[in-house]
Amino acid sequence: MRLSAFAALLLAAPVVAQPVAEPTDSTAIAFIKAEATERGQVMDHATWMTDVHGARLTGSEALDRAQEWAVDRFRSWGVSAELEPWGTFGRGWKSDRMAMSARVSGPDVASQSFPLTAAPKAWSPSTGRASGELVVIDIDDDTLDPATLDVRGKVVLMGSLSDVARGLEPLAQRRDEHELLELANAGLAMTRGAQRRYSPEVLARYRARAARTQAVLTGEPLAILTPSGTGGSGAVRAMQAAVPEGQATGAGGRAAPWTAGVETVAQFAVLDEHANRLIRLAEAGQSVTIDLDYAATFTDEEVVEDNVIAEIPGTDLADEIVIVGGHFDSWHSGSGATDNAAGSAVTMEAARILKAFYDARGEGPRRTIRFALWTGEEQGLWGSRGYVSEHFAPTPGYGEPPTDVLPGHANVSAYYNMDNGSGRFRGVYMQSNEAVRPIFRAWLDAFDDSTAQTLTISNTGGTDHLSFDNVGIPGFQFLQDPLAYFAKTWHTHMDVYDHLDPDDMEQAAAMMATFAHHTAERAEKLPRKAMPDLAGN
Amino acid sequence: MRLSAFAALLLAAPVVAQPVAEPTDSTAIAFIKAEATERGQVMDHATWMTDVHGARLTGSEALDRAQEWAVDRFRSWGVSAELEPWGTFGRGWKSDRMAMSARVSGPDVASQSFPLTAAPKAWSPSTGRASGELVVIDIDDDTLDPATLDVRGKVVLMGSLSDVARGLEPLAQRRDEHELLELANAGLAMTRGAQRRYSPEVLARYRARAARTQAVLTGEPLAILTPSGTGGSGAVRAMQAAVPEGQATGAGGRAAPWTAGVETVAQFAVLDEHANRLIRLAEAGQSVTIDLDYAATFTDEEVVEDNVIAEIPGTDLADEIVIVGGHFDSWHSGSGATDNAAGSAVTMEAARILKAFYDARGEGPRRTIRFALWTGEEQGLWGSRGYVSEHFAPTPGYGEPPTDVLPGHANVSAYYNMDNGSGRFRGVYMQSNEAVRPIFRAWLDAFDDSTAQTLTISNTGGTDHLSFDNVGIPGFQFLQDPLAYFAKTWHTHMDVYDHLDPDDMEQAAAMMATFAHHTAERAEKLPRKAMPDLAGN
Repeated sequence: MRLSAFAALLLAAPVVAQPVAEPTDSTAIAFIKAEATERGQVMDHATWMTDVHGARLTGSEALDRAQEWAVDRFRSWGVSAELEPWGTFGRGWKSDRMAMSARVSGPDVASQSFPLTAAPKAWSPSTGRASGELVVIDIDDDTLDPATLDVRGKVVLMGSLSDVARGLEPLAQRRDEHELLELANAGLAMTRGAQRRYSPEVLARYRARAARTQAVLTGEPLAILTPSGTGGSGAVRAMQAAVPEGQATGAGGRAAPWTAGVETVAQFAVLDEHANRLIRLAEAGQSVTIDLDYAATFTDEEVVEDNVIAEIPGTDLADEIVIVGGHFDSWHSGSGATDNAAGSAVTMEAARILKAFYDARGEGPRRTIRFALWTGEEQGLWGSRGYVSEHFAPTPGYGEPPTDVLPGHANVSAYYNMDNGSGRFRGVYMQSNEAVRPIFRAWLDAFDDSTAQTLTISNTGGTDHLSFDNVGIPGFQFLQDPLAYFAKTWHTHMDVYDHLDPDDMEQAAAMMATFAHHTAERAEKLPRKAMPDLAGN
Repeated sequence: MRLSAFAALLLAAPVVAQPVAEPTDSTAIAFIKAEATERGQVMDHATWMTDVHGARLTGSEALDRAQEWAVDRFRSWGVSAELEPWGTFGRGWKSDRMAMSARVSGPDVASQSFPLTAAPKAWSPSTGRASGELVVIDIDDDTLDPATLDVRGKVVLMGSLSDVARGLEPLAQRRDEHELLELANAGLAMTRGAQRRYSPEVLARYRARAARTQAVLTGEPLAILTPSGTGGSGAVRAMQAAVPEGQATGAGGRAAPWTAGVETVAQFAVLDEHANRLIRLAEAGQSVTIDLDYAATFTDEEVVEDNVIAEIPGTDLADEIVIVGGHFDSWHSGSGATDNAAGSAVTMEAARILKAFYDARGEGPRRTIRFALWTGEEQGLWGSRGYVSEHFAPTPGYGEPPTDVLPGHANVSAYYNMDNGSGRFRGVYMQSNEAVRPIFRAWLDAFDDSTAQTLTISNTGGTDHLSFDNVGIPGFQFLQDPLAYFAKTWHTHMDVYDHLDPDDMEQAAAMMATFAHHTAERAEKLPRKAMPDLAGN
């Protein structure tokens, strides 16, 4: 009785559809892995980007030459490549010469000068050889009355004592199981949290600092110094110069130092250890003079900037595309190695590997595979947003909803981005798109790298996949080991070739190529999240 | 039968003398610890040495002013202090201005210049503003024929690609129990091993490098660059310039760059990441020009150099002395914080604490306590050797046996030195003197710091206690946590205040004061090792 009742229950149970196994291509994976490691060239691409062409600031001639090199290198593999303009950026700029030192003078101190490790903030104007009295202003001093400031001709250090790590903890990390499990178990709540980058308190503090900076900027100082905020890493982090309010606005409606006609003061980030010394000297009542020798050149006033777009054409589904990319521009003080020669070299290497594979197979991919090296990313994803606006869905500004949907929009299966440093791929951020989980899981299983198995529903932000995700096209970043990205290299003068990890770069290239190949070959395009509302809806 | 036989055995056992308990002074220890922490000033001493007076290269005016400050500060506590000359050193020197950058030029590369993080080697002559073509010479290339070198007017990078740590391991360490146990269990064999600093292979390699350097030095280059050898730490290590052979010799019979009349080429240590970039650029066939702007001043030709000697006079045993010290001079590129403002500030703080204690007690120490801030240490322990030669036993050169023994020799109970960075005291190197073990054990027990309990028979070298040990006077260094001393700060431009650990500095000052006090108050002077043979015996 009991048994037959149980049998009846079984029979009555709803029929659960067995998921159709996601096809994977073990031949391709084996080829790709061998090509990436045994015949890998990813570090050679990185050498040319970083050591030879150097920093690739948007608008600069160095970026132009590096882009030409990249186009040539794609073509040398038989991969078609072009420069495709995305719009007018602003002014070109480069630093030609930079030295800074401090002199302590006092009746009881020997006349001596010590060099300060510093980097100009981008688009800072020249000072030439000039000297100014040091004035220290605590940027967090709420009692500071901007009206009483007298900084004319002085060198103003805006900041307070910074923490300096003494090295008992490693600067670089690989993700451990605890962290990976947390990501694997993340719910959608975490994806929303990931988009919010600053707490209200932090934001309020930043705004107060900006207000005090405005007071100093308009006081005609010789130069403004700020502590780098990277104490103990040996690195100096420097992005763009701040500008006085009320000047001409450029693209995006912002007054930026790259906007033609905008004037500002020379600004420098200073190694925390050295900024701390200046602050302590002031506290000890010592008079300090800062000697500067700084020259920069503004080149074209209105640069038309390009992305590099390369392509392996598809076959039976050639109208549909999968895109792989990373931004090629960098900040100016290092050579843009982990941010983002890493992603650019991996993108190029994925192209080289896939071209070799399709040549060996004697048949191209089903869908077209594009390789994009964006520019203007550091100033607000300009290159990728321009590309998406032109081809898929126009968006007026960063993070704003699209105003229209173009016919090409439906044809993009996915965009894969790399821009979190050199660290090994440990999995994929699904960017709130739960429907891709079984597909990505099958691809990760087939790729068979025990270090890269984690899928997280969580989002990651701050880079070019957002330009796609923002208009409803599946855009993804891989989950990477952080290494010393935020601790040391991100936007710093230490972002140089030797902080790239060759093994991790090869693994990333292989996995990027595998994901592109599977996306190009699968029966359907990747499932999408709900389309965002158009602007005005 | 058996039992009574056993009892007989017991009775027959030799009588073992119970060791006389080593007296300790808990009142003093409590006072010292409170003074060191609750009213501690050690970091203020360090601020003045490093931030205000800065680098204290032997022979420099900066060192003179810093010594005057130290004398004044000792006196401000009621501790007598004097400058005591130890001999004629050589030339004074300081770097006034230093900037270095590299320009890559080629038909396909944008005209751009990137700064190189570098530091002059001490006593390098000025180059002014000058440019030279980069030539890379692999210093370990055994096929290099010096006769074929053409380096006239060029900037020669002598070196090969350096390893750059990517930060997955911490730069700084505290000693763990494994390491401490190994030191605790060390036998005398280890003490001999500790004296031998280089393997024959390493020595041979250094000699081959030196020979190739000679070939370049005599080829009239504009400048010579060498990789710093500190890759990944962010630091540049720079000591003195190499000199061409066959020139005038100075004190110690060596031709040194500080010897009056010696001429050499400007030499610079370069951050490994930047040297690697230059090497890879050369390998990639790129032409590179190095732009230099470097000015230095040679001051006096023959500096008479001093030690700072301070003293708290003894009472009933005032003729006998205990000495506490560290070297006050530094290299030039940082501000000599861990090497050795640390030891100097701890020495001064020990003086301040002990003066406060004896004042509170109303009675001075039994033995005289001296506080010595040596100079010329970095060039070969000149200051401490000069002092020992003058007062205790003349020695003609570094590590050479004494030629005589002066009456004062018998009066020194012990010398305690600190010169291994800022790291916490974990115990004491007994310097092969087994007889001090029960004494130091009692003092460590009484100091009651669970982190500082290890006694090792092992030796440590390379600093001023050797000047005493070498003539048979007990000379000791404390066993310290290394922190990032050799990894980052030692002799580098990153040897600055923020890499000092305040807690460790306070603990060291308290322990140094305690050891000095117990040595000054105990019934007997410390036991000695066998007296070394005099020269010629």
